[in-house]
Amino acid sequence: MIRERAIIARLRRFATDPAARGLLDDAAVLGDLVITHDSIAEGVHFFPFDPPQSVGWKLVAVNLSDLAAKGATPAAALLSLTIAGDGSWEEAFIGGIEAACAHYGLPLVGGDTIGLPAGAPRVLGMTAIGKAGPRVPPRDGGKAGDRLWLIGSAGDSAAGLAQLHADSNARGPLVEIYRRPVPLLAAGQAIAPHATAMLDISDGLLIDALRLAEASGCIAAIDLGAIGLSGDFIEARGESLEARLFAATGGDDYALLAALPPRIDPSTLNLPEATTMACIGSLQPGPAALKLSVRGEAVATPETLGHEHHGQSAAPVADRP
Amino acid sequence: MIRERAIIARLRRFATDPAARGLLDDAAVLGDLVITHDSIAEGVHFFPFDPPQSVGWKLVAVNLSDLAAKGATPAAALLSLTIAGDGSWEEAFIGGIEAACAHYGLPLVGGDTIGLPAGAPRVLGMTAIGKAGPRVPPRDGGKAGDRLWLIGSAGDSAAGLAQLHADSNARGPLVEIYRRPVPLLAAGQAIAPHATAMLDISDGLLIDALRLAEASGCIAAIDLGAIGLSGDFIEARGESLEARLFAATGGDDYALLAALPPRIDPSTLNLPEATTMACIGSLQPGPAALKLSVRGEAVATPETLGHEHHGQSAAPVADRP
Repeated sequence: MIRERAIIARLRRFATDPAARGLLDDAAVLGDLVITHDSIAEGVHFFPFDPPQSVGWKLVAVNLSDLAAKGATPAAALLSLTIAGDGSWEEAFIGGIEAACAHYGLPLVGGDTIGLPAGAPRVLGMTAIGKAGPRVPPRDGGKAGDRLWLIGSAGDSAAGLAQLHADSNARGPLVEIYRRPVPLLAAGQAIAPHATAMLDISDGLLIDALRLAEASGCIAAIDLGAIGLSGDFIEARGESLEARLFAATGGDDYALLAALPPRIDPSTLNLPEATTMACIGSLQPGPAALKLSVRGEAVATPETLGHEHHGQSAAPVADRP
Repeated sequence: MIRERAIIARLRRFATDPAARGLLDDAAVLGDLVITHDSIAEGVHFFPFDPPQSVGWKLVAVNLSDLAAKGATPAAALLSLTIAGDGSWEEAFIGGIEAACAHYGLPLVGGDTIGLPAGAPRVLGMTAIGKAGPRVPPRDGGKAGDRLWLIGSAGDSAAGLAQLHADSNARGPLVEIYRRPVPLLAAGQAIAPHATAMLDISDGLLIDALRLAEASGCIAAIDLGAIGLSGDFIEARGESLEARLFAATGGDDYALLAALPPRIDPSTLNLPEATTMACIGSLQPGPAALKLSVRGEAVATPETLGHEHHGQSAAPVADRP
């Protein structure tokens, strides 16, 4: 964790171009393009037994989620493919890439293919390029007084992952969301022009909220009781405080967290009809921190807020510089 | 080899956007930007004992070489970093990235950092984005009658690699070129407006010449005797036909191969002063093939033309879709 923070700090020393946005964002802004790169590794971000089609789908989805958080429209992708076996896994994986590219109108325009030493875990990457909308919300623009809105729900994917850890043959809607997350592109595009700050909560709602707060120089006050939980999640894990903390720290959600001025009500913003959204708190003046509560009662901030770094076990999503 | 060809053919089935250029090129063209991604893997493209600074430098250089072949000017890069140990290797690697980015005026604007399972070979990637010049030469535009020009020399890097295979402590100019190749950016920019086709010969002069010939639907006739060999190369391996075939198939050269109409003499094109260049043959009408000669005598085409796929041993460069 510290190791990775040190490395990102090291990168920041020379990533001083304005397009880099101080490596605070999950995407770079270059002219009217938004550019992001996410990689996933076998045994870290996906299980060796995950269906390769779903791994391909997920690689596209996690990259598009970064574009969604910037309100960008998918324009092109480059695939970084490693080949580690006889090619049949990769063939199926590419089927998943193709399906997701077709579904989201994302043209594959290039990339590279390399071989790996026998037995090496697969590492797969994608560079996704989006066309910027009228405004590309940063991570650091939140203002005290803004409301924090969660677009989409939290916890489903972590609950699915837990089911797979318990039983690699687990099936069901939560496993499906873990394997095939949905990037909230249309919602991101609708909200981006109004958001003072926005990001996707792929590492966990709490850690990403803290990052937004730190970048914006505010306190993020979050009402855990307001977090939208899906019916499937509640069925699997209930809606106790413990379950809510699990949902808020589990990560691998591709929901959006937006800071919006109080006058903006996202339900008036032409979001897709079935979009879950909830005001889960606000930004408050004060030194960057999280302030958690439930039904007005303060809740201690848990030690682990989400994923900072996935080094050893199958787990969802990585930090990005 | 066939495995990788099949996979690239599979990708082509849906990479139908014009920006993809049929996945024939090493870079995509998106508006006025040229975008490329190259990854390198430990034990495949570099030795575990290579100095990490040089690996960082090389990752930048191999990506910039793809921009050079398109005549583009470096504009931005995203780094895909894996962390596999205590972070000290990565720290030094980033030093090499920083040095090369500074040297070539390449702003680092984003990327991602992920952890790998313990013991996994490192996989490092870069997406390089360049500003297109007035013309972005494709791979498939060569015409019968064009002359083939080699800008830069061939074989140095393969000779350095051979020295390292024999002795991991080998040092000297050839090892240095293997570890710190020089992308021919200024030369590429000067030649691109005139080239009917151009590519860098990172996989080997002969295999890349055949690719140019196949894409352009011509015979590539190459005079092995005309290939520029450096003094260091000649000192190490001589200039026999065997040495010339070694140079022409060794790969990991970041020289440029350009097809130019006969009226164009690249020595008049304002290339940097010390640029090595030689007319090494021509494109001829006929079904795509290589036709090799030396001093007017036909030479049989060797079985291995360069690197199609590096799966098991430290070796220089991968195929790209």
